[in-house]
Amino acid sequence: MRTQVCIVGAGPAGLLLGHLLRAEGVECVVIERRSPEYVLGRIRAGVLEQITVSLMERLGLDGRLKAEGLPHDGFNLADGERLIRIDVAALTGKQVVVYGQTELTRDLMAAREERGLEVIYDAEDVALHEVDGDAPFVTYRKDGAERRVDCRFIAGCDGFHGPSRKAVPASVGREYERVYPFGWLGILADVPPCNHELIYANHERGFALASMRSETRSRYYVDVPLSERIEDWPDERIWDELAIRLGPEAAAQMTRGPALEKSIAPLRSYVFAPLRHGSLLLCGDAAHIVPPTGAKGLNLAASDVHYAAEALTGFFRANDGDAIAGYSDRALARVWKAERFSWSLTRLMHRFPEDGAFERAMQVAELDYIATSRAAQTSLAENYVGLPI
Amino acid sequence: MRTQVCIVGAGPAGLLLGHLLRAEGVECVVIERRSPEYVLGRIRAGVLEQITVSLMERLGLDGRLKAEGLPHDGFNLADGERLIRIDVAALTGKQVVVYGQTELTRDLMAAREERGLEVIYDAEDVALHEVDGDAPFVTYRKDGAERRVDCRFIAGCDGFHGPSRKAVPASVGREYERVYPFGWLGILADVPPCNHELIYANHERGFALASMRSETRSRYYVDVPLSERIEDWPDERIWDELAIRLGPEAAAQMTRGPALEKSIAPLRSYVFAPLRHGSLLLCGDAAHIVPPTGAKGLNLAASDVHYAAEALTGFFRANDGDAIAGYSDRALARVWKAERFSWSLTRLMHRFPEDGAFERAMQVAELDYIATSRAAQTSLAENYVGLPI
Repeated sequence: MRTQVCIVGAGPAGLLLGHLLRAEGVECVVIERRSPEYVLGRIRAGVLEQITVSLMERLGLDGRLKAEGLPHDGFNLADGERLIRIDVAALTGKQVVVYGQTELTRDLMAAREERGLEVIYDAEDVALHEVDGDAPFVTYRKDGAERRVDCRFIAGCDGFHGPSRKAVPASVGREYERVYPFGWLGILADVPPCNHELIYANHERGFALASMRSETRSRYYVDVPLSERIEDWPDERIWDELAIRLGPEAAAQMTRGPALEKSIAPLRSYVFAPLRHGSLLLCGDAAHIVPPTGAKGLNLAASDVHYAAEALTGFFRANDGDAIAGYSDRALARVWKAERFSWSLTRLMHRFPEDGAFERAMQVAELDYIATSRAAQTSLAENYVGLPI
Repeated sequence: MRTQVCIVGAGPAGLLLGHLLRAEGVECVVIERRSPEYVLGRIRAGVLEQITVSLMERLGLDGRLKAEGLPHDGFNLADGERLIRIDVAALTGKQVVVYGQTELTRDLMAAREERGLEVIYDAEDVALHEVDGDAPFVTYRKDGAERRVDCRFIAGCDGFHGPSRKAVPASVGREYERVYPFGWLGILADVPPCNHELIYANHERGFALASMRSETRSRYYVDVPLSERIEDWPDERIWDELAIRLGPEAAAQMTRGPALEKSIAPLRSYVFAPLRHGSLLLCGDAAHIVPPTGAKGLNLAASDVHYAAEALTGFFRANDGDAIAGYSDRALARVWKAERFSWSLTRLMHRFPEDGAFERAMQVAELDYIATSRAAQTSLAENYVGLPI
């Protein structure tokens, strides 16, 4: 098979890029290792920035998002005693929208046929070849047969563990990484949320997050040492811990219910640079990971895809090679700022084992400062809603 | 001798408090271990916040400060390539004033006689007694004789190494501390400054600060490992290092000259809480130390003194015991925020030995973010000029 852009990975980044390229008349095909059901089964983030919403709008695929998404005007920081509300809408004139990544992926999947976006699922042993030159190709196995896609560019949208990033020679790419000494223990339950907006709490006992997927489905987290085992956390123990860490006000509004899903996820900050090597462009988790604090992961993938679609469209429609050359720097400028925000909010809201009384006092002082400074609140708000493209 | 308030220490904090109490008709005496010449010989900070300027104004001792001080509308952050100017005046409507601590102390000393402020210099073996009760006293030796000052309150303005803080029982006070793995190597020279405003630089090779005392006297710093010896830093080596770290633009404007003073000062963050125990009130360095990044030390002493003067005046003039009881919380609220600012600016602008590529990237990302965000610049500016009293 021959196409202009071969997209590796049919998660939200790959599908979004595929639809954007199709809308501009660029030929592409998406290769995905897993089945559609598997992709939809992954539980992921659910807070969309303007950039992500606007890409869905541009594609005309925002119908369900607009109908079912929950626009949020703000979020809250809690320190065990009080709630500090960050009035994002008043401070920035913008909103975020709570809409599960699964739902976004479902909308993008549903539009495949109508928009003529070809996605090959269950592709085994996906491998990238000759990315250095201008005639790269992708191979995979499907139904027992070897297949090959020849193309002008490959877009690596295959996540942290996919083959795309590994196709860049070690001498070319540089890795930046921070691994955190705790994980997020998450619980998903069909109960109404305790607050209509998110609450990030930094309690003496640790971090907690009250979030939601809809008005009837809640998502909560507490941080735990990575040595913890999920078997040691029956539902009631999680609810008890949440009630303490979120504080009495939120606890009074919290409805408990059986876990639909329960897991411990490690936290990592990671950036691979540059985002382009030869004819390979990396987007989203394939090139960078943020800790989930601040909900930047999916949105950062969307902004990469925005820049990648512009670069590829520029190349194929205006023969603009500079657009490709500029992709990495343009995307990375925003990636680094979002990495900074996710790292600093993680730093502010978690207890680190290496921290002493002074570092804890600095967290309290920063929360006190935020509570009284419009500038500090505006800085938080503009990062939360997403920095300008 | 009997008085209402015995002030220990005749640095700027002690003298400022003495004058403020005298202006309100409260009796006081200041006891100082050193000679006037020694006190004036100490080289210290030189950037005054509004609170410090306004206290001098209130005392009517701001004549020379107004005539000779250099009002600054902003300051600069450098990252080795560019200058990011923080336009403090435009962002906050306020200024800072460059005026050496030595000059401020000189003005306060000169007004002693006219204002009837008694200062006892060269007082040896100063000791505080019975601070738990309401009849404390201070003893010292002078000219070979034992002396005693009985009072209702003692104000400890005797710096980090003075006896006041140590008079609080260990079971009562709590210490918060962070020691930094580097020191500031400072050089003072009679040359015009390289820039009319301060430049804080974070270069690959380390931190640098271009500051000044006047239009003809410059103060520069580079950070060095604490193991460095001043003998290994001849003047030219310091100037060479400054030229690299401050970047080509500043280096081109930098005038070299022989060092009037040269020293390596360690950096420390330290808070002792509470600031009051019984009849003892602690002010300034006696209770807390900030790293010099951001120039908060003297200004924080001034804000403590402001609160202490209000509390003591409230007690003696309105018989308001609550004013005394509230002193520690009021002063600490501002202390913690200034500690946070000094710590975070230190964190942003220095290379830490434990930092890897990711942490360095976070510094660069934060500088990039600051360069493009009005909210981030406003937050820096409002802290630099001093948070509200």
